[in-house]
Amino acid sequence: MRARVRRILETVLYCDDLARSAAFYQTLLTTTPMLTGDRLVALEAGEGTVLLLFQRGNSGALETAGGLVPGHDGGGPVHLAFAIDADAVAAWEARLAEMGIAIESRVCWDRGGQSIYFRDPEGRSVELATPGLWPSY
Amino acid sequence: MRARVRRILETVLYCDDLARSAAFYQTLLTTTPMLTGDRLVALEAGEGTVLLLFQRGNSGALETAGGLVPGHDGGGPVHLAFAIDADAVAAWEARLAEMGIAIESRVCWDRGGQSIYFRDPEGRSVELATPGLWPSY
Repeated sequence: MRARVRRILETVLYCDDLARSAAFYQTLLTTTPMLTGDRLVALEAGEGTVLLLFQRGNSGALETAGGLVPGHDGGGPVHLAFAIDADAVAAWEARLAEMGIAIESRVCWDRGGQSIYFRDPEGRSVELATPGLWPSY
Repeated sequence: MRARVRRILETVLYCDDLARSAAFYQTLLTTTPMLTGDRLVALEAGEGTVLLLFQRGNSGALETAGGLVPGHDGGGPVHLAFAIDADAVAAWEARLAEMGIAIESRVCWDRGGQSIYFRDPEGRSVELATPGLWPSY
């Protein structure tokens, strides 16, 4: 009965071309959507996290049988990061090359972690980071 | 050496008033920042997830000793959700009332989960959700 948050559950991206972004993240995450439609594509992103892709302009309030889901909206070339294993950097570099994705930048962090940065089809800054970035990671 | 994502690591909000949003999420998450400054406040959000709050207009590319962190940007009254325990809804309702936060909506999901929705100081749609929402949660 503690009022404590467990973790971030849902992270949302607002897409000009939902099908294109959905295909990209489906491949990146090697997953099939839990839900797919003109409004929303929901992807399991590992360890109880969920990536929600909304069609921009179609994320208003929604009446459901169980209650009202409030509206929301956003945009821009935002940033998001995914956790990868410490020994997976080379495998990811090879996989991104296969996917035709150019690496924009690499960062070595003081705590020993490494990050690879690239852009998704709508210019968002996607990061893959190994442990050793934050005090908590 | 598998090129698999573990989970979403970092979720970003772009804030018109960084100090105000930082205070709000610091209280909500009952945490102290891992990093705080004019550009960025980083909050541990549980189970290896991190909430990054950026000052809107101050999230451009950054040269660090370890490499270039690419620029990014965003805005709008976006949505994010946090996982809470199944038996924590009443405790959260009491805590939100203490914090002076009005609940905008409640949803009961087909899989048995419950969600509470409210707005953060910049109008974002924040959700607290119990298990039983997604096939993976």
